[in-house]
Amino acid sequence: MTPLWQREPVGVVGLGLIGGSLGLDLVAAGARVRALVHRPTTAARARERGLATEVSTDPAVLDGCGLVVLALPLDRLLDPDPALVAALPDGAVITDVGSVKGPVLRRWRELLAGAGGGPGGCRFVASHPMAGTARAGVEAGEPGLFRGRPWVATPEAGTDPAALQAVRELAEAIGARWLCCGAEAHDRAVALISHLPVLVGAALLQAVEAGGGEIGGGEIDAGADLVRALASSGFADTTRVGGGNPELGMLMARTNRPALLEALDHYRQSLAGLEAMVAGEEWSALRQSLERSQALRPDFL
Amino acid sequence: MTPLWQREPVGVVGLGLIGGSLGLDLVAAGARVRALVHRPTTAARARERGLATEVSTDPAVLDGCGLVVLALPLDRLLDPDPALVAALPDGAVITDVGSVKGPVLRRWRELLAGAGGGPGGCRFVASHPMAGTARAGVEAGEPGLFRGRPWVATPEAGTDPAALQAVRELAEAIGARWLCCGAEAHDRAVALISHLPVLVGAALLQAVEAGGGEIGGGEIDAGADLVRALASSGFADTTRVGGGNPELGMLMARTNRPALLEALDHYRQSLAGLEAMVAGEEWSALRQSLERSQALRPDFL
Repeated sequence: MTPLWQREPVGVVGLGLIGGSLGLDLVAAGARVRALVHRPTTAARARERGLATEVSTDPAVLDGCGLVVLALPLDRLLDPDPALVAALPDGAVITDVGSVKGPVLRRWRELLAGAGGGPGGCRFVASHPMAGTARAGVEAGEPGLFRGRPWVATPEAGTDPAALQAVRELAEAIGARWLCCGAEAHDRAVALISHLPVLVGAALLQAVEAGGGEIGGGEIDAGADLVRALASSGFADTTRVGGGNPELGMLMARTNRPALLEALDHYRQSLAGLEAMVAGEEWSALRQSLERSQALRPDFL
Repeated sequence: MTPLWQREPVGVVGLGLIGGSLGLDLVAAGARVRALVHRPTTAARARERGLATEVSTDPAVLDGCGLVVLALPLDRLLDPDPALVAALPDGAVITDVGSVKGPVLRRWRELLAGAGGGPGGCRFVASHPMAGTARAGVEAGEPGLFRGRPWVATPEAGTDPAALQAVRELAEAIGARWLCCGAEAHDRAVALISHLPVLVGAALLQAVEAGGGEIGGGEIDAGADLVRALASSGFADTTRVGGGNPELGMLMARTNRPALLEALDHYRQSLAGLEAMVAGEEWSALRQSLERSQALRPDFL
């Protein structure tokens, strides 16, 4: 059977990095893409860039869409514009792209409780395309962003299998790798591999600022300047996500707080173990511990 | 005046990543490079690769060198082969490439106390060319490794200015950026920007392993597999140096222990500050703190 995204127009709400990239790929794949954005200037620029076949600031643009992707930031997913919710077509498959799934799922289950779910149950599919760059806004969307990247869905017992399949077909059409897991498992996993590294890197930048300020002497008088002069690509890499978008980092922490605190607890223990080896001059144990880290890393590449 | 490296042969002890890269650039610049290596197979391969104009396992190869670069790992710099020390030509300028400077300086000041230092004082110049790749051994050397990278010297009051100038001319001849600071300032700075990131990244890998093992459910049954499937380039970057050479990481920690413990102390405080904001749901404070980290990072690029 022809996939839903080919049979009926696809709605995209928000044309930032994710929504814009999605729009570009879907338009290229031949879909009719109807995008809803907030500002007229965004709409004008999105039309110029060809991010959708139709772009409007009027929620009615979503009329007739069989599938709607909510490509909004976490805070707007958790507290959506009532006009948007009201404009979602009855019976349409709805999915989101939020990086935390439990709270989004709970909120939208409640919001759509009144909407026609069809015989298969709820037509909301919580999902998370795991792709990104450092860019944001209407200029950020780029073709091929999702190619080879995971697109994780977190279906529940009540999720309509046909709705799940429709989102899967859309994700696979633009080259993403489809993956399903429970919402709680997803949130704990991203706390570890995505949200924890933000705090780890952010703390490193602050520690270097604090420690560098205490270093004196030398041709370079200020210690802070010395650490800057000596920093290598290794430091830049370790702090890349820690020096990223503060608003996004805060939103992820706020939305995924329990899992992030759990991840921080694991991290504090791992670091304390390494520090104890340095303090206790247990050099053979330290080498073995660093060997374990070295052995673990290739699995994540 | 013609630089020393052009007037007299340059000795290079060790032809790993640093020594081999140095040899390639110096040979290309027209220097006579006499290299001392440990094993005959290394010598043969080094000759094939053109890492020096003369390669030998006999310390006598250093006879007649006006400048000798000790391109050895930290442990061998701190506990050098007595035959090497005995073979260093009287009056030659000696420099090293160790990534920790205080202990190397103290050790070699002692070792060379008996050698003729000339009227300007000690002809040992502690230095640290800050360049590298993940590779090691006789195949690792590559041309242009030092181009645009800092080459830090840590002269003392007694360092012969002519010796310092001779090392500077060599470093600048191969495109490095010359920098002087005190040995203690250097060691505290590299603890922060180079040695701390190793432990920070190594701990992150171990935390994800520990935390991932506790995640259950989903199509991917094992949580450890789920975190691997979801890991992005951000995670790979944050853990790159933490998953690096364990022997090197251990040696740096052992040699720079006091400065590293101080750096860890700063780090623990920075991380605890961020964690307290998450635990206490102080979202505005967390955003501000992440903004500070974001603002700091461009200085290190």
